[in-house]
Amino acid sequence: MEVFEAVRTVLAVRAYQARPIPADALRRIIESAWLTGNSINGQPWHFIVVENRDTLKQLAVLARTGPYIVQAPLAVVVAMEQSRYAVSDASRAIQSMILTAWAEGIGSNWVGFQNLAPVKPLLGIPDELEVIAILPFGYPVRKLGKGRKKRKPLAQVAHRERFGTPFA
Amino acid sequence: MEVFEAVRTVLAVRAYQARPIPADALRRIIESAWLTGNSINGQPWHFIVVENRDTLKQLAVLARTGPYIVQAPLAVVVAMEQSRYAVSDASRAIQSMILTAWAEGIGSNWVGFQNLAPVKPLLGIPDELEVIAILPFGYPVRKLGKGRKKRKPLAQVAHRERFGTPFA
Repeated sequence: MEVFEAVRTVLAVRAYQARPIPADALRRIIESAWLTGNSINGQPWHFIVVENRDTLKQLAVLARTGPYIVQAPLAVVVAMEQSRYAVSDASRAIQSMILTAWAEGIGSNWVGFQNLAPVKPLLGIPDELEVIAILPFGYPVRKLGKGRKKRKPLAQVAHRERFGTPFA
Repeated sequence: MEVFEAVRTVLAVRAYQARPIPADALRRIIESAWLTGNSINGQPWHFIVVENRDTLKQLAVLARTGPYIVQAPLAVVVAMEQSRYAVSDASRAIQSMILTAWAEGIGSNWVGFQNLAPVKPLLGIPDELEVIAILPFGYPVRKLGKGRKKRKPLAQVAHRERFGTPFA
């Protein structure tokens, strides 16, 4: 799938088929995080792939906004060092993973930002790292359309030469 | 270009041809930012497209780490509200733009994070917003290869089931 087509159509997916994610697709998802551009090449990130059913169940309980994690065949937990650019770098890596997965027909959604600290002992994540996201991945239950997104009018966020002069 | 291919090969580009960016490619770059997934659909972002040569010259001076902005046919200045998820959301939008551009053969690099506040009066950006990045866009001067990236070994950042058990 073309990059722009992926960005344009990708939707948050919160209901997954039990069908497993093929190993080569998972490898591409993880490599896309690993290879993402980041500030001064600090790579302040960690990606923990969880496929164990019991662990997925516990993640679904711990992440209060993500009970649907329990349905997913796998989840990637993203932890980061507490450094200046870590939120930005990790967010870019997450975006890379979501787009790479979508191009393979695999859906996801960013679960997180609320307190994910209880996930750390479950996965043996060192206490000095912070968990920024849990990304469940799975084939969508419903055939998804073209991705109708609710967005502010383009002219409200895109400007030409100076703030306030609409781009469009 | 396939999404994974774009993520895998994209490089920071800091030397641009004078050749202009076609309007339709620019439109896709801006739309890819606008359409990016973001937290609770807050869309706390603004994108200012700068093509004016004098303004680009001034941006190149103001952004101390980005003197090469002066060569670019255009730059997108990214400003954000100072809200909880803004850094994360804006970083995802920036990643979408960089990948969309790369798929069109257009290079970029994230200039910023140092103090970009002086850019605000130049572009009429309201004081309550923060400038997170300037992204110059242009066709690379040099034909770029496959993107050899220096990264930590995959096993150091990707784990299986528990932190410390290498994924690979």
